[in-house]
Amino acid sequence: MTTTSQTTVHELVPRHREVLEAAVAAIGSREYYSRYPESPSPRVYGEEAAAAGEQAHRAHLGARYEALASQPASADWVGDEVSPYGPTLDIAYPHYAEGDLDALLADVRSGVDDWRDAGPRVRAAVCVEILDRINARSFEMAHAVMHTTGQPFVMAFQAAGPHAQDRALEAVAYALVEQERVPAEAVWEKPGKGEPLRMTKRFHVVPRGIGLVIGCNTFPTWNSYPGLFASLATGNAVVVKPHSRAVLPLAITVEVAREVLAEAGFDPNLAVLAAEADGEGLAKPLATHPAIGVVDYTGGPGFGTWLEQNVHQAVVYTEKAGLNTVLVDSTDDVEGLARNLAFSFTLYSGQMCTAPQNVYVPADGIDTDAGRLSFDEVAAKVADAVRALTGDDAKAVQLLGAAVNPDVVERADHAGSLGTEVLASRAVTHPDFPDATVRTPALVAVDASDEAYTSECFGPVAFLIRTSGTEESLKRFVETVREHGAMTASVYSTSEDVLAAAERASLDAGVALSMNLTQGVFVNQSAAFSDFHGTGANPAANATLTDGHYVSGRFRVVQSRRHT
Amino acid sequence: MTTTSQTTVHELVPRHREVLEAAVAAIGSREYYSRYPESPSPRVYGEEAAAAGEQAHRAHLGARYEALASQPASADWVGDEVSPYGPTLDIAYPHYAEGDLDALLADVRSGVDDWRDAGPRVRAAVCVEILDRINARSFEMAHAVMHTTGQPFVMAFQAAGPHAQDRALEAVAYALVEQERVPAEAVWEKPGKGEPLRMTKRFHVVPRGIGLVIGCNTFPTWNSYPGLFASLATGNAVVVKPHSRAVLPLAITVEVAREVLAEAGFDPNLAVLAAEADGEGLAKPLATHPAIGVVDYTGGPGFGTWLEQNVHQAVVYTEKAGLNTVLVDSTDDVEGLARNLAFSFTLYSGQMCTAPQNVYVPADGIDTDAGRLSFDEVAAKVADAVRALTGDDAKAVQLLGAAVNPDVVERADHAGSLGTEVLASRAVTHPDFPDATVRTPALVAVDASDEAYTSECFGPVAFLIRTSGTEESLKRFVETVREHGAMTASVYSTSEDVLAAAERASLDAGVALSMNLTQGVFVNQSAAFSDFHGTGANPAANATLTDGHYVSGRFRVVQSRRHT
Repeated sequence: MTTTSQTTVHELVPRHREVLEAAVAAIGSREYYSRYPESPSPRVYGEEAAAAGEQAHRAHLGARYEALASQPASADWVGDEVSPYGPTLDIAYPHYAEGDLDALLADVRSGVDDWRDAGPRVRAAVCVEILDRINARSFEMAHAVMHTTGQPFVMAFQAAGPHAQDRALEAVAYALVEQERVPAEAVWEKPGKGEPLRMTKRFHVVPRGIGLVIGCNTFPTWNSYPGLFASLATGNAVVVKPHSRAVLPLAITVEVAREVLAEAGFDPNLAVLAAEADGEGLAKPLATHPAIGVVDYTGGPGFGTWLEQNVHQAVVYTEKAGLNTVLVDSTDDVEGLARNLAFSFTLYSGQMCTAPQNVYVPADGIDTDAGRLSFDEVAAKVADAVRALTGDDAKAVQLLGAAVNPDVVERADHAGSLGTEVLASRAVTHPDFPDATVRTPALVAVDASDEAYTSECFGPVAFLIRTSGTEESLKRFVETVREHGAMTASVYSTSEDVLAAAERASLDAGVALSMNLTQGVFVNQSAAFSDFHGTGANPAANATLTDGHYVSGRFRVVQSRRHT
Repeated sequence: MTTTSQTTVHELVPRHREVLEAAVAAIGSREYYSRYPESPSPRVYGEEAAAAGEQAHRAHLGARYEALASQPASADWVGDEVSPYGPTLDIAYPHYAEGDLDALLADVRSGVDDWRDAGPRVRAAVCVEILDRINARSFEMAHAVMHTTGQPFVMAFQAAGPHAQDRALEAVAYALVEQERVPAEAVWEKPGKGEPLRMTKRFHVVPRGIGLVIGCNTFPTWNSYPGLFASLATGNAVVVKPHSRAVLPLAITVEVAREVLAEAGFDPNLAVLAAEADGEGLAKPLATHPAIGVVDYTGGPGFGTWLEQNVHQAVVYTEKAGLNTVLVDSTDDVEGLARNLAFSFTLYSGQMCTAPQNVYVPADGIDTDAGRLSFDEVAAKVADAVRALTGDDAKAVQLLGAAVNPDVVERADHAGSLGTEVLASRAVTHPDFPDATVRTPALVAVDASDEAYTSECFGPVAFLIRTSGTEESLKRFVETVREHGAMTASVYSTSEDVLAAAERASLDAGVALSMNLTQGVFVNQSAAFSDFHGTGANPAANATLTDGHYVSGRFRVVQSRRHT
């Protein structure tokens, strides 16, 4: 490190001490905390921010991403991104073929010893600096995420910007705590007959080496940041392998990381982007490469399970998918219930890994504040609420976004074949993007004995499942989630006994439970610093965002000892 | 739970509060701490303890282990133990064949929900009570371990008794801290334009289910206790599958665990012994059974690697083996060096997983307090020190113990075929046990280019390896340990630069390093609460005894949330 860059590092540690203290306190209490404001208001981000962000986004289109030209030499450039809203992005990124990986990873590895020796405090401060600068580009990021994932703009701003940044900071805080739990030095003095035996011991944090982050199409930042920043903060380099249709958000991220690392006097190749063409399959040779010590994956269960079972040289964290479940037993606010569920189905067209899919309702109806309602009446209430949210095309697209791929549209359009269609999916025309494919949620009624709802139906399709009563609902809930997994569950009941039974069932199923959500919180939402996202206790994910275990496997402690 | 047993539990928590506080403080500082006195002195354990322990041991011989007859119904009884000192133990234990496992594990699982709901504090107190009662049986345990492993008596007392109990307590302390890091409840209040959004969140510790502990022949308690108690303390049941030749120590352990669990009002089947016949191979179907959520293994690298790669439904912690290494560069106490190494080679005939095997010495000799010594002179010093320790048969057996199996004897007797025999292994006659096979360490000189020392040679064989100098020693050290693993390493040098280089090399190799051990600490020794045993950073082990990561994978956190 040069003198100049050392100065920069020394500035970063005091600059970010306070935020790290607050973040560390928050993960201890799991109470509300947020560093990055979720409001895209000009009062928060500045009068010019929105326009500047859009301008920055436009500058990326139809061009090479030159800010990454400083990465290790690549054979060529690659880019297949097409906006779910229509336009082709036509951006090219540095491309490494399978044969280039040995050389690439050797370059990535070469800065790790300096990064390791810098220690947890410096690394945490560098990570916060990266996040602060990513935060300053939140409008640009919102456009990038909107046009790669199909998220509506405001959601893209919040979920892919401040919310993702907060979740990253949460991971940085866990990494700091986890590394500093082990003292750097200890004096061991064993009493004996004569002089005590006395040794000084030093404990060194040693990273696994290189963390591979495999991004997904729908949440390229929110789902990648915890692993990316946890690996970086624990002394690893990171190789970010984005989904071929959602590269830009992670290119911006890696660009900022490289910029800050270099300014702080570290090797910028501690963070590189490894983009690939559609269907190239670079993740397998990367994940099984001997230089890779950590793998973070978000995506389909097939490849996630393959990684869990076949990657032996690295620790593997996965988030896959499952059958998110709602148990309806009774309610004192049936309109609130219907509105809340409708919003959860509608937001981003049900393409969130946390969106509910399976709604168990007793066949003989439920008690509500509007009296006893039959199964069909409950279904009608929910359908009406979806219609109310999505009836106006211009407003609907602000919630629905666009379908991320044709399979989603296919499932929406053919939902009727899966059961009795209570509400058909409707094609919505986007006023600004006529080429976008947008669908409203379909609601399908089925019997508990049907098979249709026991596999994931990714997209705007929800099942209303007739059970013999809440007892069967709970039983089916536990069975299906144990077998197929779930990221979320929720229950509606006016009975404390039923709520307690549902809570016990959620422990058996190993899935987080929300109770009686009728107001401004939705089951899809997972708040950084407070809500654990995923449990690792069912097949939907083998890890939690974020707890100590998610971080502690990314490094090891190596000690030395000597008489003193 | 009955009223009586609840009282018992309520007594245990205050009774063990203080020790848990001290143990938690010790794992935070990694300074010296011990609860269980290592001295077998009558002043510590009582005048009658030694005789009573021997008496209790004799009572086990030639009989069914009736104290475990209360385990779930088993098809028959099994037992193949033969003391390495000669006598057949002729003890029979409940036996479950592969076809019995579904029923056995269902019985084991049935008490887990109550155990989960009891919470971390109660479980920790129950675990300490188990350990205290095991401690009271330390003399009985010493005989059991001596006559299953071949350890000499005093070592068996210390390593399998108080040292193992301390390592177990360390794991219980980590389990307590790890579970209590997550608050049981949090109030989340998100500020907004109107009333804040307010939710109460509850966080539940949920165990994986059942932990399987696969014991080894040489250290049935020391190596099994951390996993056993970490699993139990985090809410899991445990199935203990001992090595077929070292059942008794774990039978005693399980007996005490069941006794305390039952008294505290829990299902005694939360801890069961699953003994097997020689070569039966019960570990595979157990480890891959869907009911098993955690596997702890100590033993050979072959099966350890198989477990790591083939057990997908459980988290797997392994300690295997490797090439423990000594780097000799220079010394200001060559007699101390020779004595220290000789002791490490001699203790339990080199059958410790921490015993050094590979000693790198520059071919052109080293600087010492006795002047420049050639390679051969260094070798002769070490050989003399081994002779001094082992020259008298009656004294030698107190250090050497007995060979645990014929392969160890075979390797000792044929060490000369691996290189130039500096010191041949010698057969020692045990004055009390004429049938015991006892061998002194062999020292074999080889060139760095030889292959012989690059695989594990378990038993009393050490290699003195001629290198072109310390630079090559360090390079070979890093290369061989990265490839084959190591549990320990040590270095001798009078140069701070060389010590620093060795410390950096130990980080690259991922192995703990001891420096200039010439006094009363030996590289074989790993002190509970202070020394991390294994790093998980090289192939010898994927885990550390004990750190947070070793414990946190044994449970998950499942949350619930509701508006309040």
